[in-house]
Amino acid sequence: MDCIFCKIVEGSIPSKKVFENERIVAFHDIQPAAPVHMLIIPKKHIPTMNDVTAEDDALIAELFAVARQIASELGIAESGYRLVNNVNGDGGQVVYHLHIHLLGGAKLNGLN
Amino acid sequence: MDCIFCKIVEGSIPSKKVFENERIVAFHDIQPAAPVHMLIIPKKHIPTMNDVTAEDDALIAELFAVARQIASELGIAESGYRLVNNVNGDGGQVVYHLHIHLLGGAKLNGLN
Repeated sequence: MDCIFCKIVEGSIPSKKVFENERIVAFHDIQPAAPVHMLIIPKKHIPTMNDVTAEDDALIAELFAVARQIASELGIAESGYRLVNNVNGDGGQVVYHLHIHLLGGAKLNGLN
Repeated sequence: MDCIFCKIVEGSIPSKKVFENERIVAFHDIQPAAPVHMLIIPKKHIPTMNDVTAEDDALIAELFAVARQIASELGIAESGYRLVNNVNGDGGQVVYHLHIHLLGGAKLNGLN
């Protein structure tokens, strides 16, 4: 696999991880779009949200559980944050390994 | 409950629904931020993502399954789309009933 996020999962590309378990890794986005900008990804290579199937349901739920946990640990749960999943070209997806952006730490701009 | 989305679920406030089952409703955002802008919500009143608990895991997964289905039905799965959940003030949350924005139909702007 020539996938940058798979390499982050393996550790062959370094990242500033803030969470890891058997199924999920979360790390700092290297081009942050807000004071807090984390990426939450499954270790399993799923290219886009379109490729998620019913067998991934527990994994999808866990990605958002991890997002909640990280927001709480970073002290932005009450001030607020945004969770974003970009899909394909119009969505602005850059890396084709499913990832949830967690943005916060300041009042965010509009949706588009 | 004085919640506008609970009233949409009940039908006492009208909406242009594109999906409904026993647990979830999806409808057009009345102030669209993109050519396609749907809101996908649980019928259960959950104020924010912070209030989601492990007992809601299947519901969270299903919200995203419905998002995928709607994107496909609207013909934007391949062109691309964005899924957004805003939480509290910094996130720009307006209605305090959990909702996923589905945006697409054009190249979307940056994350923030």
